[in-house]
Amino acid sequence: MKCRVCRQAAIIDVPRHNANFCGPHFLDMCRRQVIKAIDDYDMMTKDDRILVAVSGGKDSLAVWDMLIDLGYQADGLYVGLGIGEYSDISGEYAKAFADERGLTLITVSLRDDYGYDVPTATVASRRVPCSACGMSKRHIFDKAAIDGGYTVLVTGHNLDDEAAVLYGNTLRWELEYLARQLPVLPARNGFPKKVKPLVRLSEREMAAWCVVRGIDYLVEECPIAAGNKHLGFKEALNKIEADSPGTKTAFYLNFVEKVAPLLASYALGDDVTLQPCTRCGSPTTAEVCAFCNLVEKSAAHEPVPVELITGRGRRR
Amino acid sequence: MKCRVCRQAAIIDVPRHNANFCGPHFLDMCRRQVIKAIDDYDMMTKDDRILVAVSGGKDSLAVWDMLIDLGYQADGLYVGLGIGEYSDISGEYAKAFADERGLTLITVSLRDDYGYDVPTATVASRRVPCSACGMSKRHIFDKAAIDGGYTVLVTGHNLDDEAAVLYGNTLRWELEYLARQLPVLPARNGFPKKVKPLVRLSEREMAAWCVVRGIDYLVEECPIAAGNKHLGFKEALNKIEADSPGTKTAFYLNFVEKVAPLLASYALGDDVTLQPCTRCGSPTTAEVCAFCNLVEKSAAHEPVPVELITGRGRRR
Repeated sequence: MKCRVCRQAAIIDVPRHNANFCGPHFLDMCRRQVIKAIDDYDMMTKDDRILVAVSGGKDSLAVWDMLIDLGYQADGLYVGLGIGEYSDISGEYAKAFADERGLTLITVSLRDDYGYDVPTATVASRRVPCSACGMSKRHIFDKAAIDGGYTVLVTGHNLDDEAAVLYGNTLRWELEYLARQLPVLPARNGFPKKVKPLVRLSEREMAAWCVVRGIDYLVEECPIAAGNKHLGFKEALNKIEADSPGTKTAFYLNFVEKVAPLLASYALGDDVTLQPCTRCGSPTTAEVCAFCNLVEKSAAHEPVPVELITGRGRRR
Repeated sequence: MKCRVCRQAAIIDVPRHNANFCGPHFLDMCRRQVIKAIDDYDMMTKDDRILVAVSGGKDSLAVWDMLIDLGYQADGLYVGLGIGEYSDISGEYAKAFADERGLTLITVSLRDDYGYDVPTATVASRRVPCSACGMSKRHIFDKAAIDGGYTVLVTGHNLDDEAAVLYGNTLRWELEYLARQLPVLPARNGFPKKVKPLVRLSEREMAAWCVVRGIDYLVEECPIAAGNKHLGFKEALNKIEADSPGTKTAFYLNFVEKVAPLLASYALGDDVTLQPCTRCGSPTTAEVCAFCNLVEKSAAHEPVPVELITGRGRRR
């Protein structure tokens, strides 16, 4: 297996490009894909003040590393979700990455700053765990970006993530969600601009990026997410991709290019008038925003150990 | 397991309806679904002269049986495709069904009437087999319906078929194909009206219909189709359906209701001017239609035995 560029020994195959790469040329390929995503979708410029949402996993550390490497001004934001040991360790990876490189990492803790954690919010709100977690993260990401004067919020969603979400939304033809599933959401109504520079790169490639660049990251997946539908959709797409390399990319990129524009009028909330939440000031349609409601319920609840949520037999 | 309606012993479970049925009430459920499809999409009336494309398999025999049972005037059309023993046997099932019920079955043979068969057309045209077969069938179905003065052409495509085609077209976002993937295509440009009354019923339910009604049908799948992508898509959907019953129905019916209308302007060929083929008179954009070109190439080619096409290792 030889590198497509230099014919030296390759370290990775990229079937959808029908190519193999050595370490340095693999990194080049990744950089090109990120640059192309940033350019194609007008994600950001070197003048932007960028905030990267960092989990301690491969994707978010890789995208932060890439943006710094490409000369962008990017700080990190870590949210401690209180998912037992998983969260403790993920925080250590994020901090070590930032410290070693002299980068700024903002840290927020659900338990210390808001009086709850994801396992407790799951039980207190009777939501599925990924819903309580996602809502908490979105709120804190948005608030940190706006409060900190950042002009762009970056997340590490990769091609596999986006294709799996698209797949789920397509199976149900959720037009409101489909209309907003874009690599860039412009700033609006008090929400920051949000961008996903990794949409042209796969999960496996982000793991390889970290290995080649010597980045330590938390390999384990979230123990609560195991077995959720999203992972089932990833698996289904992986099977199709293995049979026909390139299908996943075509599915996602053709959607963004050809279909999302047809659905623009369905974008949820674009025509809604928002007002500041009377508690936290975040834009909301109600008097008190959904996040503040979640905080109220969850902080009043006795702390729930993560083992109760990851117990076998629980349906999600 | 008890019948939802009469609490007698059930013979089949229908997970997407969260119900079990005894034989007679299962047949009632199937009839209701067919009536609903016919009504919802204005498929046909009792005054229509209906032609059912019949393969000898469960779906086409079931839909013919149902239509007769519901009081429609429906003749059958069988096309001998020359796929070795598979075609010989399928023709016998179709003829036996018609004979036993005193129904009219029109029979066309690719080899006898046009001088070729599907295996030969596959090699002669360098098409994938399902493409050569599909084009041949579509042409002969259309021609038989128009020549015979039929007002509606019925095919036995069921929910699994339609969902799998939709799935493949969605993975590639083939807007032109998606725009035309409807349960009814109106008559236009010299083509007959085409309808699919089984879109609300599954493959498994059609097999059960035949068993309960005592209809003998060819159980084997086409030996050439084995391993094609369409069957892979069916498998992927079956896995999702097993985890979340109802997903397949929602995927297909929501598409028809919510998405197809948005794509109407992409419908391939709706704005094209057609003229009669100089050889066969069928509507075409060219001087000679694609079918006549296929016939010319294939009839000139030495007959190809089906075993050559079903040989292992052949890619489709």
